[in-house]
Amino acid sequence: MRTVAGTLEAALAQLLGGPVKIAGAGRTDAGVHATGQVVSLVTQRAFPFEHLAAALNASLPTDLSVIESGIAGPDFSARFSALERTYVYAILARRQRDALLARYACHVWRRLDLERMKEAASSLVGEHDFRSFCGTPPEGGITVRTIRRLEIAASGDLIRLTVSADGFLHRMVRTIVGTLVEVGSGRRPPDAIPAVLEARDRAAAGFTAPSCGLYLAGVRYSDGYDSFREPALTAGVLSR
Amino acid sequence: MRTVAGTLEAALAQLLGGPVKIAGAGRTDAGVHATGQVVSLVTQRAFPFEHLAAALNASLPTDLSVIESGIAGPDFSARFSALERTYVYAILARRQRDALLARYACHVWRRLDLERMKEAASSLVGEHDFRSFCGTPPEGGITVRTIRRLEIAASGDLIRLTVSADGFLHRMVRTIVGTLVEVGSGRRPPDAIPAVLEARDRAAAGFTAPSCGLYLAGVRYSDGYDSFREPALTAGVLSR
Repeated sequence: MRTVAGTLEAALAQLLGGPVKIAGAGRTDAGVHATGQVVSLVTQRAFPFEHLAAALNASLPTDLSVIESGIAGPDFSARFSALERTYVYAILARRQRDALLARYACHVWRRLDLERMKEAASSLVGEHDFRSFCGTPPEGGITVRTIRRLEIAASGDLIRLTVSADGFLHRMVRTIVGTLVEVGSGRRPPDAIPAVLEARDRAAAGFTAPSCGLYLAGVRYSDGYDSFREPALTAGVLSR
Repeated sequence: MRTVAGTLEAALAQLLGGPVKIAGAGRTDAGVHATGQVVSLVTQRAFPFEHLAAALNASLPTDLSVIESGIAGPDFSARFSALERTYVYAILARRQRDALLARYACHVWRRLDLERMKEAASSLVGEHDFRSFCGTPPEGGITVRTIRRLEIAASGDLIRLTVSADGFLHRMVRTIVGTLVEVGSGRRPPDAIPAVLEARDRAAAGFTAPSCGLYLAGVRYSDGYDSFREPALTAGVLSR
């Protein structure tokens, strides 16, 4: 299967003249999009690295593009130096599908009550054990994470969730979204979240929302670098 | 080749139990999107036509969806009863590509001067012979059309052109966009349009902008029905 990492590594190997292993800042499973992914690599090769982005884009397929490139500090790792990741999730809530958004937003057939979703979301902000919102637990089994921000906004039928945390567990955002959709559609009460967290059991949370609505939108580092880029689709949804 | 019309006609034939021929309101060449296309058909079959949209969506592929359906007056034709069509064209003007917009916007490598483009656009509004902006001339050869509105707006790197007219010639919007991009990038002066119109020669106009940026966004009829739906991508670009 063609993967973003594999395609990028092949293009890098061509330019740098040897095998290259990249480290990505955030997970992007199949079907997940990224507007603010950050990757790092270690190489001995000389190259005008500030022009690496343009050189890569010349050979990469059009559905994969590099925004900028440069030299980082000696201990920098896109993955391990990250302080905070931000994901955006796009939901189209209306009866009819949208043909153009089939691969770019999750389609929910009914109207969602945003106020209920916001109330439920507020219980997720802060440091919690997110075991109930985790697909496959990480090695070591530590499932405590800190959500610093969980915002829900809408413009017409299009709903945008923005969630920032120090790190995310496997399928954590998609399980949070699925659970909040169940609150928004009336299948769960808005005050159900504390009990879900406490259960420490994936079965207590809601369905896993599909990957097509998910965007890794940005990664923030201690040196102040922030790769955040709002997906073009949700740029019209104003935060309120 | 799979076409929107062919796919829709096959789904309709299945539901209505016999071959169906549809008439579409506006041209959508390969690669062109539509958020507000209108089609009509004549049938003797009884069907709860207000539910036809939902029935069709159950069998159509996810990249083709029907928003609503109903019974029109006896002389209605989606094509011939249309008073005005509106197309939207999306341009991403920046150095880097956007992987997610590869099929949904035209990528222009340089910044475009919107004020120059607006000045040039104003010369296109009104009744003109658009022969210079026409790919293949229509049967009968009449190339006079009336552009009622040509707006250009931007939000960051994303530029939206909205053009409404009583009708459009083959590749007319894409040729207008290509010519305005040449004005915006400095290759043509903003006051060049009247001479291009006067030439009545396709060679006098600019390049044909690619189909991926073009959306048939709406069709307006004499009974007041208007199918306009802003593409989700450009919904965040505010008109100014």
